[in-house]
Amino acid sequence: VSTKPPSGTRDFLPDDVRRREHVIGVIRRVYERYGFEPLETPAFENIETLLGKYGDEGNKLIFKILRRGEHEASGEADLALRYDLTVPLARVIAQYQNELPKFFKRYQIQPVWRADRPARGRFREFYQCDVDSIGSTSPLLEVEQINAVTEVLVRLGFGDFRVHLNHRGVLTGLLNAAGIDAREHETALVALDKFDKVGEDGVASEFAARGIRPESAHDLIGMLRSIYGAPVSLESSSDFDAEGNKAKLGAISTSLEGAETSEALSQLRAIVELASHTAAGKFLSINPRLARGLSYYTGAIMEITVPDLAGSLGGGGRYDNLVGMFLGRDIPACGFSLGLERIIVVMTERGMFPAGVVSCAVDVLVTLWNDEVRADALALAAELRAGGLRVDLYPEADKLGKQFKYASSRSVPFVAIVGDDERRDGKVSIKDLGSGEQSTIARGEAARFVAQRRR
Amino acid sequence: VSTKPPSGTRDFLPDDVRRREHVIGVIRRVYERYGFEPLETPAFENIETLLGKYGDEGNKLIFKILRRGEHEASGEADLALRYDLTVPLARVIAQYQNELPKFFKRYQIQPVWRADRPARGRFREFYQCDVDSIGSTSPLLEVEQINAVTEVLVRLGFGDFRVHLNHRGVLTGLLNAAGIDAREHETALVALDKFDKVGEDGVASEFAARGIRPESAHDLIGMLRSIYGAPVSLESSSDFDAEGNKAKLGAISTSLEGAETSEALSQLRAIVELASHTAAGKFLSINPRLARGLSYYTGAIMEITVPDLAGSLGGGGRYDNLVGMFLGRDIPACGFSLGLERIIVVMTERGMFPAGVVSCAVDVLVTLWNDEVRADALALAAELRAGGLRVDLYPEADKLGKQFKYASSRSVPFVAIVGDDERRDGKVSIKDLGSGEQSTIARGEAARFVAQRRR
Repeated sequence: VSTKPPSGTRDFLPDDVRRREHVIGVIRRVYERYGFEPLETPAFENIETLLGKYGDEGNKLIFKILRRGEHEASGEADLALRYDLTVPLARVIAQYQNELPKFFKRYQIQPVWRADRPARGRFREFYQCDVDSIGSTSPLLEVEQINAVTEVLVRLGFGDFRVHLNHRGVLTGLLNAAGIDAREHETALVALDKFDKVGEDGVASEFAARGIRPESAHDLIGMLRSIYGAPVSLESSSDFDAEGNKAKLGAISTSLEGAETSEALSQLRAIVELASHTAAGKFLSINPRLARGLSYYTGAIMEITVPDLAGSLGGGGRYDNLVGMFLGRDIPACGFSLGLERIIVVMTERGMFPAGVVSCAVDVLVTLWNDEVRADALALAAELRAGGLRVDLYPEADKLGKQFKYASSRSVPFVAIVGDDERRDGKVSIKDLGSGEQSTIARGEAARFVAQRRR
Repeated sequence: VSTKPPSGTRDFLPDDVRRREHVIGVIRRVYERYGFEPLETPAFENIETLLGKYGDEGNKLIFKILRRGEHEASGEADLALRYDLTVPLARVIAQYQNELPKFFKRYQIQPVWRADRPARGRFREFYQCDVDSIGSTSPLLEVEQINAVTEVLVRLGFGDFRVHLNHRGVLTGLLNAAGIDAREHETALVALDKFDKVGEDGVASEFAARGIRPESAHDLIGMLRSIYGAPVSLESSSDFDAEGNKAKLGAISTSLEGAETSEALSQLRAIVELASHTAAGKFLSINPRLARGLSYYTGAIMEITVPDLAGSLGGGGRYDNLVGMFLGRDIPACGFSLGLERIIVVMTERGMFPAGVVSCAVDVLVTLWNDEVRADALALAAELRAGGLRVDLYPEADKLGKQFKYASSRSVPFVAIVGDDERRDGKVSIKDLGSGEQSTIARGEAARFVAQRRR
């Protein structure tokens, strides 16, 4: 039997968990300061809740759970693992609409599962850290969320990321102008979404593979070139300047016509204008080729990139129709998701974790040199724990030197020894394994003594 | 499409999450003071990792995941959802043995999934909060864990629980003495495990249903009666007295013979004796009919009950052979698991949650009365957040009265208003929705003003 975790998943040993908890703690505190409330949903959903929400490519990546008992042999699935946190939220809004505030704002930090091909920063089990705001079409929803995720990244130490902004209405205008039939828009967006991996020629091939006329691909790339004012290179996606945003919005407005595009442009202008008054403004880039893979977006779409990672650190957008699929009437909504694993991959490679995050789990090891003193060792451990210390107890009587070595190998800073003399005098010896210094003190003082000296 | 979560699972709205986080926080802090380190494993395992580890009843309750892509139509499963946290730990020990300390002690707080029939406190998705200690046969492992889970429950406010203690060796001795063949021991233990639900007669029927001779059931119950010194009633499982523990150990010793039972008794005596010197001692009850359903236990077994809940708040035991199933050589180990949901069910029904646990998510709502002041409202929200406050921003221009009402309905204690006068003077008005009092103060003072007045 293999002892590795399943393909695309990982075990998190103690230091890994500490790094994850550090990042999650920063995210949670920022999200809460923006007024988002915590929500959790089950790991699996009824399969019909998920199917048809993520487009054809998404459907294929859903992990399905076999029916149980007498139905197991049918080979049918009735449940499926959570693919994102947005569709479960839409179900929750429909189910509890009378208990939730009108402008419900929730954060949710939980794993999702996708049967994707594993790659650097891409796993089959990964955590999404989502904020979503329900109940308003106001661009303040997008701006507050862009601000929140930007503040998270700045607090984690990132300075070189870009928040790319586009709108499904702009994409619809582009695809229409390129003569692509509305029925082909979904597949065309999946092709366009690959731009940053495959470039102009690659996108043209993707279109061809999906049966879209070469003239349409040619026209679409021509329009993008004219909007960007240059060949659409892979690098240009991380350029930023405030004038550039205005210029791109102007160029889109010149290239495209129709009510949908004009409404989209007015929303993008409002988001850019409002964000320019916030700390997030300088990270925001209009990027008309940003597509986002998920099919439920209806308005603004956003994505965060850093230069040293293909793919994104997170993304989101407006989905004004998704709640309606469950509720029967639409409720506007907007969300943003940060990818925990990708943030950690980049932070690890760049050495961004503060020194204190990965630390020893134990302040003091209580030694044990024969079985007769076990009850006393338990009592000493209890006294030290009552003083707030993290205390380990060596489980077997052994030579003291071996126990010191064990403590050192685990970076435990102090060991406590109660020998015959100490027991007679109501004392305990504390050895500082860093300095080698040993002090004999009253039992009642031991917890404070260690607490003052640990770093 | 139903908007309910799947059968046996639940959605956790914000107040539910806060109660869960409170309990998890207490558990985590206690576990860390006992020197346990955090570990996390994937939600699913390769199916062969789980099959055959939990007995026949367990196998049936495992959620299995359908193979993907071209293999989906085969109806076969290659992955399965985590059924407990112990088997994944045994796999982890085998995989990372060279990176982990000799006496590895880990805690793990993650969900597990079992396709059980839902009931009060029994869900198909539930969190286990486990401590496990690896690498020693010392009874100090059991005693430290009994201490840790006892301290958790005491800190949560429980005073009336019992930690039941038995040993697989005692059970083997009992079943042998009742003339039950070794090949039938596993199924006999599953029957005996139902004692607290079904009583003496029920257990006799369970034995009959499993093809065990009626004479054996009769003899077994007779031996238990003589050990307990009374008919084995459902209530007697929560009795406790120190003398009773000694009496029961003595009665077992008289009823049973054989090397295995004698070794088991010496381990139980060591655990009871050592625990008697700790705060956990007074909660510990020898209970020779305690069976525990899982098949991997080899030594001491433990279970925690409270009078007002059928089933247990948690349990555990020694499993000295499980790591060997993955590693090829045995490593002794012992673990204890607390059930988060059952703890919360009892705490909720008894009203044990402190008042502050469920609290409003927002300290102050920034109001918005026309679209022209949106940028300024964003700036004010940023200033208040920089002062550490949790700030919500009303997303749409609306009548102030309506916004006050919205804040009140969500128990937000303060609203911030910047009218034309305030803007001209660089001020902000803060209204205390509890007292109705409104104060106009300098913008730079607003965060401190609210922070000092919030409770």
